[in-house]
Amino acid sequence: MTAAAAGGPLTGLKVVDLGQVYLGPYCGLMFALMGAEVIKVEPPGGDTIRGIAGGRENPAAMMLNSSKQSVVLDLQSEEGRSALLALADNADVLIENSRPGTMEKLGIGWETLSARNPRLVMGSGKGYAADSVYRDAPAMDFPIQALTGLMSVTGFPDGPPVKCGAAIADFLGGIHLFGGIMAALHARGTTGRGDFVQIAMQDVTHHALASNIASFLLAPDGFADRAGNSQAVLKVAPYDLFPAQDGQVAIMCLNDRHWQHLTRAMGRPDLAEDAELAEGPARCAQRARVDGWVTAWTSRHTRAEIFAALNSAHVPGAAVRTLAEVVSDEDMRARGMIHDLPHPDLGTVPVPGLPMQFARHNRVPPIPAPAAGADTARVLGALRQSGLSTRSEDKN
Amino acid sequence: MTAAAAGGPLTGLKVVDLGQVYLGPYCGLMFALMGAEVIKVEPPGGDTIRGIAGGRENPAAMMLNSSKQSVVLDLQSEEGRSALLALADNADVLIENSRPGTMEKLGIGWETLSARNPRLVMGSGKGYAADSVYRDAPAMDFPIQALTGLMSVTGFPDGPPVKCGAAIADFLGGIHLFGGIMAALHARGTTGRGDFVQIAMQDVTHHALASNIASFLLAPDGFADRAGNSQAVLKVAPYDLFPAQDGQVAIMCLNDRHWQHLTRAMGRPDLAEDAELAEGPARCAQRARVDGWVTAWTSRHTRAEIFAALNSAHVPGAAVRTLAEVVSDEDMRARGMIHDLPHPDLGTVPVPGLPMQFARHNRVPPIPAPAAGADTARVLGALRQSGLSTRSEDKN
Repeated sequence: MTAAAAGGPLTGLKVVDLGQVYLGPYCGLMFALMGAEVIKVEPPGGDTIRGIAGGRENPAAMMLNSSKQSVVLDLQSEEGRSALLALADNADVLIENSRPGTMEKLGIGWETLSARNPRLVMGSGKGYAADSVYRDAPAMDFPIQALTGLMSVTGFPDGPPVKCGAAIADFLGGIHLFGGIMAALHARGTTGRGDFVQIAMQDVTHHALASNIASFLLAPDGFADRAGNSQAVLKVAPYDLFPAQDGQVAIMCLNDRHWQHLTRAMGRPDLAEDAELAEGPARCAQRARVDGWVTAWTSRHTRAEIFAALNSAHVPGAAVRTLAEVVSDEDMRARGMIHDLPHPDLGTVPVPGLPMQFARHNRVPPIPAPAAGADTARVLGALRQSGLSTRSEDKN
Repeated sequence: MTAAAAGGPLTGLKVVDLGQVYLGPYCGLMFALMGAEVIKVEPPGGDTIRGIAGGRENPAAMMLNSSKQSVVLDLQSEEGRSALLALADNADVLIENSRPGTMEKLGIGWETLSARNPRLVMGSGKGYAADSVYRDAPAMDFPIQALTGLMSVTGFPDGPPVKCGAAIADFLGGIHLFGGIMAALHARGTTGRGDFVQIAMQDVTHHALASNIASFLLAPDGFADRAGNSQAVLKVAPYDLFPAQDGQVAIMCLNDRHWQHLTRAMGRPDLAEDAELAEGPARCAQRARVDGWVTAWTSRHTRAEIFAALNSAHVPGAAVRTLAEVVSDEDMRARGMIHDLPHPDLGTVPVPGLPMQFARHNRVPPIPAPAAGADTARVLGALRQSGLSTRSEDKN
């Protein structure tokens, strides 16, 4: 019934991606993997993320810029600025996550771009919103995690706050920016006019704390921000990591039915029949004993054995995997979530595939990220042929 | 130059939100806050998230369902199913994040809905993809954090893995699902046909680990997944939390310029002139001494004083705030990111505002979330008047 088309759902859209590091590039990557034509505009020397690893190119640059074209422009120069304006004049979308004020200082702010191309949707991702008291603060993922409380809710109750190991504010920012731009494009379908979409990492990270804030509101007095691998407020148990023969497993009994199922998986029907353990609050009160029984079971098995048993018993849980294991995941490869693409210096890099599946569009395999400026001459040549004055490619 | 319209960019879209807990409801919230008409369909008794806090309604239910309508339907009954079909027949979008197979079992799967309303875009969020080896595993945020390695990269090198305190896989899932649905709506503008969009929390969480995976690839031998509040691979320092008089501050010198600026903020120009400290690797090698100097400065000041000094010096950093401080943030309120809305039992609840700012659309203040089924009679009455046979409202 559903015939899948060869191109992605955003085929035909033209995107100028001035994104840097993670936030902007991840937003641009969504466009690229969905079939839009994405031109990554980089400064001479390339996006700073490329060089951050010292002598070698950072694999992250390749992971977040696949399927894009790269044009190097010196936006400090008149030629570079003219070329950028010409690209924006022909684009549906422009993405940027430079420091506040940078675009205006370069003479390529929203007012300028929109006056020239009223259909343009410009998406800006910042650390703090333009109307925030913190708007001038240098913002990166790490300080945003501190200020939003994400750090405060991560870690153990008797230990210090700790950051979420992933640059989560950046990625939440990038995908919110994508969603906002798509909403503006939707409105353009009716109005014919573009829009200026702004998101702040502070705001999107704050919103992702909704469940923590709810827990705090339910028990503000003596609330411990951090609950380790357990639950801050809900009276549920077991809910933690447990030792396996080859690592650890996460097991959560969010309700009493999960506990009943878990006891069977553990081969302990006697526990299922113990009325004193039937309800969450009672199990919480005896948590050391409950966790001990679970540990006695998990420590005799491998993570895979436990995961399989949990799945059969319909108990939420999973193996705790190391990054080395995740990077070598074969199922992710089979499903097109990781593509091993060649890089001239790095060998192969595990490049992410589009994390959305569309019934009517086949997933397009990613194309290796270009070297900085690989498409400068061709793209600017084409612009010039269509009568737009640009000369900056002479420099690259 | 930019005239802002009163309605949101998605005004006119009709969304049926079968979302549960966090993922689906957050996706639906984006539609609602951007002006779409969102009908939250709940089972008798309401979305399970409402009751999870025991006797009181969970504030999270109100935070994620503002500006929606609520219709209670028993989808196990023929009447409930008919009503859902009638709603979907008239909708642009249907969102769901039920367990794999649930929609098909209820007779409201994609093939059925799409055959009746070819313009419908259905968005499904799951823990694992339909083609994953884990597709039948019960999935929630906690096990997804374990399996994806997010837990493995969070915490201290000498401590155990720890979850990111926020339900980050849920929120990443919800906003990716929103982005995917918007892309399908964009394609519908050309093809006239809807689509079936699927995302998996495993995949979107994996992709948010791109920077960690890049670090691993650069130094796979002896790679420590966890770096506490510091940096796993980059040779940069200082980069950590430091003690202030009233808590902690995050400070990161990602490059040598940041260090130069920091020493001035600290009133230690002597350190700026010390050639042995000029470069990151050298400062890393002397990390205890470097951190000691920073601590000597931070421990004499409050977080606010330090944050102000860092901002003036253009050094990335911020106060580590507790959840109690975040919940009472006045700037978030002034900017419309938190709205204190009344709830019959909970008093006021800090409800999130739309985290995207559109130049051409004023932000619409959120309307308090409805009680479960508050709109059942009215919505189904209107459906019946338009000739569609539904009777399930008799039950509620």
